[in-house]
Amino acid sequence: MRNICMTVSYDGTSYNGFQSQPGLNTVQDRLERAIALLAGEEVKITASGRTDAGVHARGQVFNFLTSSQIPLNRWCMAINARLPDDIRVWDARQVADDFHSRRWAKRKTYRYSIRVGKYMDPLRRHMEFYHPTALRIDAMREALTYVEGEHDFTSFCSIRTVAPSRIRTIYEARLETEEADKHLQSSVFHIYLTGNGFLYNMVRIIVGTLMQIGEGKREASHMKAILEARNRGLAGPTAMAHGLMLWEVFYEDSPIIT
Amino acid sequence: MRNICMTVSYDGTSYNGFQSQPGLNTVQDRLERAIALLAGEEVKITASGRTDAGVHARGQVFNFLTSSQIPLNRWCMAINARLPDDIRVWDARQVADDFHSRRWAKRKTYRYSIRVGKYMDPLRRHMEFYHPTALRIDAMREALTYVEGEHDFTSFCSIRTVAPSRIRTIYEARLETEEADKHLQSSVFHIYLTGNGFLYNMVRIIVGTLMQIGEGKREASHMKAILEARNRGLAGPTAMAHGLMLWEVFYEDSPIIT
Repeated sequence: MRNICMTVSYDGTSYNGFQSQPGLNTVQDRLERAIALLAGEEVKITASGRTDAGVHARGQVFNFLTSSQIPLNRWCMAINARLPDDIRVWDARQVADDFHSRRWAKRKTYRYSIRVGKYMDPLRRHMEFYHPTALRIDAMREALTYVEGEHDFTSFCSIRTVAPSRIRTIYEARLETEEADKHLQSSVFHIYLTGNGFLYNMVRIIVGTLMQIGEGKREASHMKAILEARNRGLAGPTAMAHGLMLWEVFYEDSPIIT
Repeated sequence: MRNICMTVSYDGTSYNGFQSQPGLNTVQDRLERAIALLAGEEVKITASGRTDAGVHARGQVFNFLTSSQIPLNRWCMAINARLPDDIRVWDARQVADDFHSRRWAKRKTYRYSIRVGKYMDPLRRHMEFYHPTALRIDAMREALTYVEGEHDFTSFCSIRTVAPSRIRTIYEARLETEEADKHLQSSVFHIYLTGNGFLYNMVRIIVGTLMQIGEGKREASHMKAILEARNRGLAGPTAMAHGLMLWEVFYEDSPIIT
């Protein structure tokens, strides 16, 4: 048996999230079906983590064991030929027998995209949360500085979180701006969060709180106070799924994605 | 009655083209329905030209007569609230009584986008034609120089073209490259064509021929020979619709879109 690790991009719009669920259409099901068709055997894939319904991925990572002898350099093209066109694998490598995409992940980066201004872009509507009124970008940048570092993120995870520890480290939290689309009188902001792990809905609750800070409903320093309170009820709402993308997963100090 | 001119972006993926056709879902129908709901009267819109099924628009222009007294600065937001989210109007102005979006158009720009390389981008699949193997970009650029100027484009229009004259002027034909997406081992080229008018399928046939030149199936100089032959049978195939976008329409030497 070989342990094969692959990287995949997908448009999450049409899927009930990544992880298999009975009777639902998931990215995992599509991948497992495509691999089974190719390898001629059932496979069970393990991903670096779940993504919710509507969430996209640029570089989701998963691995699986197979007895197939198909050469490694043929896997991506052959699997893509068996996938719908909103899912594409773009990297395949053989990894150590005990490699596990979730347990071995050292860092992950998520991106959340917000279009701010008069008009949304109908051609990017599935990938950008649209916010019609201006946001205080400087206040949002200040708030992001409080998120960096090791914290108990109880305030910023779903009450359905089952993880035993809510302590995570955010190595970098930054906000980047794209050049404005003058004709639409709007522009896009991307919030990148890189950490050693993320709790359930953590990025979306941080972003939902950030947007309230951007709207002037809260001060930037509230971000610090909310963190310290360890109370989900004090944070903002969970931002909508379609603005979120799993950007990159890093292993062993060197990125598996280049 | 006021003559109102609007500019609209749309994702053409779900539509049977711009122009109304019995029993089909078209952008024009959606716009006319939204305007009628707002204005409280039936309207008939005139666009700068048709776009085929699957073709997108960044800046399609249309106009219509209405007796509605709604202030001009409210039209866009109010119509957008009555449109599906793959269509967005973003400019409205009152124009001369005899303004006609098609007849008064002086120049139009179309963009055709091609992703070349190992993997397609599943998040942009509706907006990029995917070409897995390399293209000779220099040869394509040379071929585009033959397209510029005033020519009889009989070779580059559908045999169903009914226009009395096939002479058109291309003011600019250029190819731009986007930064490569390293992870997908692919990059995107945009072909921009600006002219005083375009015959049926003209951009798509020029691009289909350019791709054959890029593939090395033809020499760049064939573009000149095909033009001179005035024979549709000598040109390449009609490139697929989803790579094409109506980029901008210009009126009276000053762009109506800014």
